[in-house]
Amino acid sequence: MQDDIARLDADDPLAPFRDRFDTPDGLIYLDGNSLGCLPKATKARMADVVEREWGQDLIRSWNKNDWIGAPRRIGAKIASLIGANGDEVIVGDTTSVNVFKCLSASLQLNSERHTLLSETGNFPTDAYMMEGLAAIAPDRIKARLVDTADIVNSLDASVAVLLLTHTNYRTGRLHDMPGITAAAHARGIPVIWDLSHSCGAMPVDLNACQADFAIGCGYKYLNGGPGAPAFTFVARRHQEKVFPALSGWLGHKAPFAFTDDYEPAPGIDRFQCGTPGILGCAALEVGVDLICEADMADIRRKSSALGDLFIRLVGDKCAGRDIRPACPTDATERGSQVSFHHTEGHAVMQALIARNVIGDFRAPDILRFGFAPLYNSYADVAKAVEILTDILATESWNQDRFRQRAAVT
Amino acid sequence: MQDDIARLDADDPLAPFRDRFDTPDGLIYLDGNSLGCLPKATKARMADVVEREWGQDLIRSWNKNDWIGAPRRIGAKIASLIGANGDEVIVGDTTSVNVFKCLSASLQLNSERHTLLSETGNFPTDAYMMEGLAAIAPDRIKARLVDTADIVNSLDASVAVLLLTHTNYRTGRLHDMPGITAAAHARGIPVIWDLSHSCGAMPVDLNACQADFAIGCGYKYLNGGPGAPAFTFVARRHQEKVFPALSGWLGHKAPFAFTDDYEPAPGIDRFQCGTPGILGCAALEVGVDLICEADMADIRRKSSALGDLFIRLVGDKCAGRDIRPACPTDATERGSQVSFHHTEGHAVMQALIARNVIGDFRAPDILRFGFAPLYNSYADVAKAVEILTDILATESWNQDRFRQRAAVT
Repeated sequence: MQDDIARLDADDPLAPFRDRFDTPDGLIYLDGNSLGCLPKATKARMADVVEREWGQDLIRSWNKNDWIGAPRRIGAKIASLIGANGDEVIVGDTTSVNVFKCLSASLQLNSERHTLLSETGNFPTDAYMMEGLAAIAPDRIKARLVDTADIVNSLDASVAVLLLTHTNYRTGRLHDMPGITAAAHARGIPVIWDLSHSCGAMPVDLNACQADFAIGCGYKYLNGGPGAPAFTFVARRHQEKVFPALSGWLGHKAPFAFTDDYEPAPGIDRFQCGTPGILGCAALEVGVDLICEADMADIRRKSSALGDLFIRLVGDKCAGRDIRPACPTDATERGSQVSFHHTEGHAVMQALIARNVIGDFRAPDILRFGFAPLYNSYADVAKAVEILTDILATESWNQDRFRQRAAVT
Repeated sequence: MQDDIARLDADDPLAPFRDRFDTPDGLIYLDGNSLGCLPKATKARMADVVEREWGQDLIRSWNKNDWIGAPRRIGAKIASLIGANGDEVIVGDTTSVNVFKCLSASLQLNSERHTLLSETGNFPTDAYMMEGLAAIAPDRIKARLVDTADIVNSLDASVAVLLLTHTNYRTGRLHDMPGITAAAHARGIPVIWDLSHSCGAMPVDLNACQADFAIGCGYKYLNGGPGAPAFTFVARRHQEKVFPALSGWLGHKAPFAFTDDYEPAPGIDRFQCGTPGILGCAALEVGVDLICEADMADIRRKSSALGDLFIRLVGDKCAGRDIRPACPTDATERGSQVSFHHTEGHAVMQALIARNVIGDFRAPDILRFGFAPLYNSYADVAKAVEILTDILATESWNQDRFRQRAAVT
């Protein structure tokens, strides 16, 4: 078994990427879907953007060092990861704010309809942002969540837009992006795909399924750093039809004319709003450049294999230990993570973290382990399951003890 | 004269702060109101947040290094600069996005009224954000700009909120914050003060005039770096009455409960939206800490003196050169900048920049020079006017020549 694992790592075409990241000694980090690791190249890049571009070149950097072009330039690189054209993606703001941009844009495309539809159990910020938009015009805009099984049946003539996350953050289950998009289009409904848990972890082909809008996160699989700028995809055919709700000056067609009236910029630029966070953009670009070097098919193949291995080892070693998959066991139905139910999930995750295996707990009872194929190894998975097995075998998971543990860790 | 300037710098109580910043050799930087200089301490802080907090501590930093507390912690520091309580200011998003938060909040406080009022010539993003919000419910919400002289007369029963920038970005003219706020309140209208060109440059006392909302910029006088996170002030008495329009997960009362329904956090926290940009916050905090060390009365006194000196020297040396103040000559009516009309303003600014004097051109004909009293000296002002005098005296400002210059610089 040990040999098998070693051979998997030896044969891994992505193995050389691991050395491009800082990976803390002794830490098994299976949480790249919460915060990706630090690319080594980011350190020098951050020093350069701070000391030379800001410190020495100062305001001149907007042109000299193309700060003004960063949202488009990095957006075009991300576009190459998600099946979009370079002029369909812009970087900036947070995933939440970008959800708002796309929701309000969809209402303009579909001005006779008023329901914003999503599913229960979606990542909360998506549903929350629908509520806030609805509260601006509560007589007209409605936010509605339905169970996953009812999504397609709920695509009726009241629905202005459907908002779904491609990879579910708890279960890792993938939605059928082409199938659902086609079903929505057949009923005149654009779809917003939240790619936060997909982009950088698997092939995504937005234009192949004629996607309308997408948003996603820079700090997970793109390794852009904590709270990195997010991105927004708007299909070319929609861009010019939208008067942005978040109509900030950098989305103006001539921001430096300083006119009183807003005139949206052509194309994707109108989905910019305020001044972009250049330090965040600089770190994000290093992460994106790094993932653009890898073959996305290799990433997906390894991601699936890491997940399959994790599930198989847990099945072999933890039988009878009150742990069962919360994710699909078929890798084709799953994003780059596995998750498991355990009645004392929170305490188990605390015990894992205390032993340097980092995953996430997600309420009510889910242990979640993410795989970033550029820096996670098969040995990471084997070691993580070994420690998990050990914890589940030796700890007595009664209510009192886990409460004590949770309080001290 | 030379001696007078040297004595002013020698007697300046803020002079020791200059050494706390990187100030490029030979550069006279009068553009801290576009992008503040780099505090030297920022370099080590950025290396630490990148290499240790992100690289080594990874996801654990949200608690271990209090990333989760950054928006409140830095907000409380900024509060001390603007006459607010520590629980009334939160850091995050851009100035533009924060304008949207305050406008939509005001509509909730004043739900029977529907006009968003501002003035012509305000910084464009403020007016633009009003247009975007109005476009969400065009039958109900109206955006309206009036001339400065008509603001108070326009405060009628249709007005839901008044949005003004305290220091005008072109002319530097200050609005009478207490007087206008009182006039608006007398008509049941809350006011949003944009402090982008005031915060960090002069005393501001929001609570003394019972201000309702304020927003401001982190990358100007707070020296927080390019595109630094902005801030939002909401008076305590309003906070709990608002259901945020940008209702992201970090504004939820229990973000990590991951419930489907949005319940706003108590107090100022509900004005958070998505995950904060930690790299930007780290840089901003250094800048804010630095300005908190200085006495705001000293900052205002020196800022006024720098401006008075600049205006006096231009009057003395550039007489007959087609240059006249665009700012108030009385320092009490002016923010931390001076500005001048010149018919070839764009070309003159290009010529200044070519000779290492950096200010801003603002359409149609304004030369703008900002003063950051922590790092600008009286000698900077004297040297800048000397070079300006030289340029205006020796260049022939005919239309053809300035077009050529503009094309090559």
